[in-house]
Amino acid sequence: MAHTNAQKIFKAAGAQAVLTEQPDLRKYLTGIETSFGYVLTTEKETVFYTDSRYLEAAKSALKGSEITVKQFVSPLENILSGLNQVAIPLSQTLFPQYERLKKAGLEIKDSTQAFQNAMIIKQDYELDLIKQACKIADDAFTALLPRIKEGMSENDLAAELEYLMRSNGASGTSFSTIAAFGKNSSVPHHETGADKLKFGDVVLIDFGCKFGGYCSDCTRTFLFGDDKKHENFKRTYKEVLAAHMLVKEKTTCGMTGAQSDAIARDYLKERGLDKFFTHSLGHGIGINVHEAPYLSPQGADILQNGMVFSDEPGVYFEGDYGIRIEDTVALLNGKTESLTKTDKNLLIL
Amino acid sequence: MAHTNAQKIFKAAGAQAVLTEQPDLRKYLTGIETSFGYVLTTEKETVFYTDSRYLEAAKSALKGSEITVKQFVSPLENILSGLNQVAIPLSQTLFPQYERLKKAGLEIKDSTQAFQNAMIIKQDYELDLIKQACKIADDAFTALLPRIKEGMSENDLAAELEYLMRSNGASGTSFSTIAAFGKNSSVPHHETGADKLKFGDVVLIDFGCKFGGYCSDCTRTFLFGDDKKHENFKRTYKEVLAAHMLVKEKTTCGMTGAQSDAIARDYLKERGLDKFFTHSLGHGIGINVHEAPYLSPQGADILQNGMVFSDEPGVYFEGDYGIRIEDTVALLNGKTESLTKTDKNLLIL
Repeated sequence: MAHTNAQKIFKAAGAQAVLTEQPDLRKYLTGIETSFGYVLTTEKETVFYTDSRYLEAAKSALKGSEITVKQFVSPLENILSGLNQVAIPLSQTLFPQYERLKKAGLEIKDSTQAFQNAMIIKQDYELDLIKQACKIADDAFTALLPRIKEGMSENDLAAELEYLMRSNGASGTSFSTIAAFGKNSSVPHHETGADKLKFGDVVLIDFGCKFGGYCSDCTRTFLFGDDKKHENFKRTYKEVLAAHMLVKEKTTCGMTGAQSDAIARDYLKERGLDKFFTHSLGHGIGINVHEAPYLSPQGADILQNGMVFSDEPGVYFEGDYGIRIEDTVALLNGKTESLTKTDKNLLIL
Repeated sequence: MAHTNAQKIFKAAGAQAVLTEQPDLRKYLTGIETSFGYVLTTEKETVFYTDSRYLEAAKSALKGSEITVKQFVSPLENILSGLNQVAIPLSQTLFPQYERLKKAGLEIKDSTQAFQNAMIIKQDYELDLIKQACKIADDAFTALLPRIKEGMSENDLAAELEYLMRSNGASGTSFSTIAAFGKNSSVPHHETGADKLKFGDVVLIDFGCKFGGYCSDCTRTFLFGDDKKHENFKRTYKEVLAAHMLVKEKTTCGMTGAQSDAIARDYLKERGLDKFFTHSLGHGIGINVHEAPYLSPQGADILQNGMVFSDEPGVYFEGDYGIRIEDTVALLNGKTESLTKTDKNLLIL
């Protein structure tokens, strides 16, 4: 369970104490979501210092765990007395926070790698939460399809989909839903707007939700009616889907993120499509919707069992159309497994 | 318009160049929302360096403005050549970002105050966007009321409200909607869950949305049916509302955030309620839903015309009920004006 993570990070960080205040890392250590608090782990104990807003809820959630909950009393220096060394996640630490600890006379070590090495491999309870976030997204997408009507706006569609995820138990979205109609699909990060759905439009939807603090991420591209002008689109769709599936087939433990990215990129290159594949293949998914490992041409992370990441090749023809096909994928027993499971064969509504 | 903000910040920062990469500050300078990019302002020009995902959209949005858009080519040092001094917002700068600039041989100045002094006073175009975000939230709340039914869960209610905001044109929520039924209302930051609405429940809803990159924030507390067990609640509601209104009546330019907070706190103290008022009175609202000025016992910001902040006194009786009444408020011509406008008299559904 989440409640042994603090001592695990402590051992990996190799410092006299580990001090953590970043919301995502605090969630990893405590298992609960809070907007304020410090987790301090020493050899002896782990204490979660928070304020009156969260005190009772935290005590109840962490009863019997490795973590003691105490009321935080400002200033921060109070909880650090007696220490001369502390590990903090430098890559997520604001400059003034660093300076403050320096001024308090503390030797500072970096806990970034300790957190990343732990969080990149999902434990069973984390996989369960991600699977539930994926299932909610899948169910919402399935329920959305019959509600898609000519004349609805991108905003309407995003609102419906977010409603369906929320009412199915999601605590919120992983990110603001992208809905792109027609040529808007050719903009990889289109800002969802007031454009209305027309017969024959390409529809690209990139969406995900949070459950128990963990994210899902999924993209589907389909046609709203077939106006018979989409032969190019249909041919290209098959190639993007083939690249997506090839990644799933060939990605395995021991490969780097760059090697996995190259599976899709090389496949598309042989078909003259690589220059339209303008982003990386994927990113890790967990408490954060973008985290390690990174599957990109520069991706140095070694893929291992227990990692969860997106497989999302995409091609974009400016002013015409775009296609992206994305699943949240887990690497388990040396094989990939899709956690988002809705059909990826070309859908014509 | 937004497009003169970069030169304004440059003059206030008093450095050879101002380098900005934080999403909220980048939005303030460019007027558009992007997930990646650097804005570099020198005496001569302002350049927005971004990647292929945003390049075309940024060029089109910033045509004719003070800002030139260019493709970012890694590494960052490329765009800094020839400079020996740069201002960055230290309070929002991660330690590795600071170190990198130091290692590049740059003298570093702090742009935090320049940004804060500018962003704390809303310009007309910013006020318009906040007003629209408030109107969307108001309209959604009004449309929600007849949809509230016995047996619906907190998640259902939050999903409905977020749907209504989204389909009325919001780009998303300002924060995850808080819906608290019955005794859950006594937890100031209750995590919205599966509890179902019962006759006689207190209902507390804290919600807001984003429009054009700006936030709204509103809380309403009401009764779902009157089971005649709520005499204490009704008496207390009147006092919290009176504190809320007194803040609006008495808050004016030249006052500190602490003085405005004290208007509510002193009023509640005279009625023995101050010990249940466990948070601060309010916070600034703009591109961020929590920003300066801070209206708290420690609030040192001087309130001025053009500021927008929340007025949200609240009292919480653990295990029983809570009451919070919040409007987004602007200070204009020395007087407060509510930008969220739904009725605050006690509502019994």
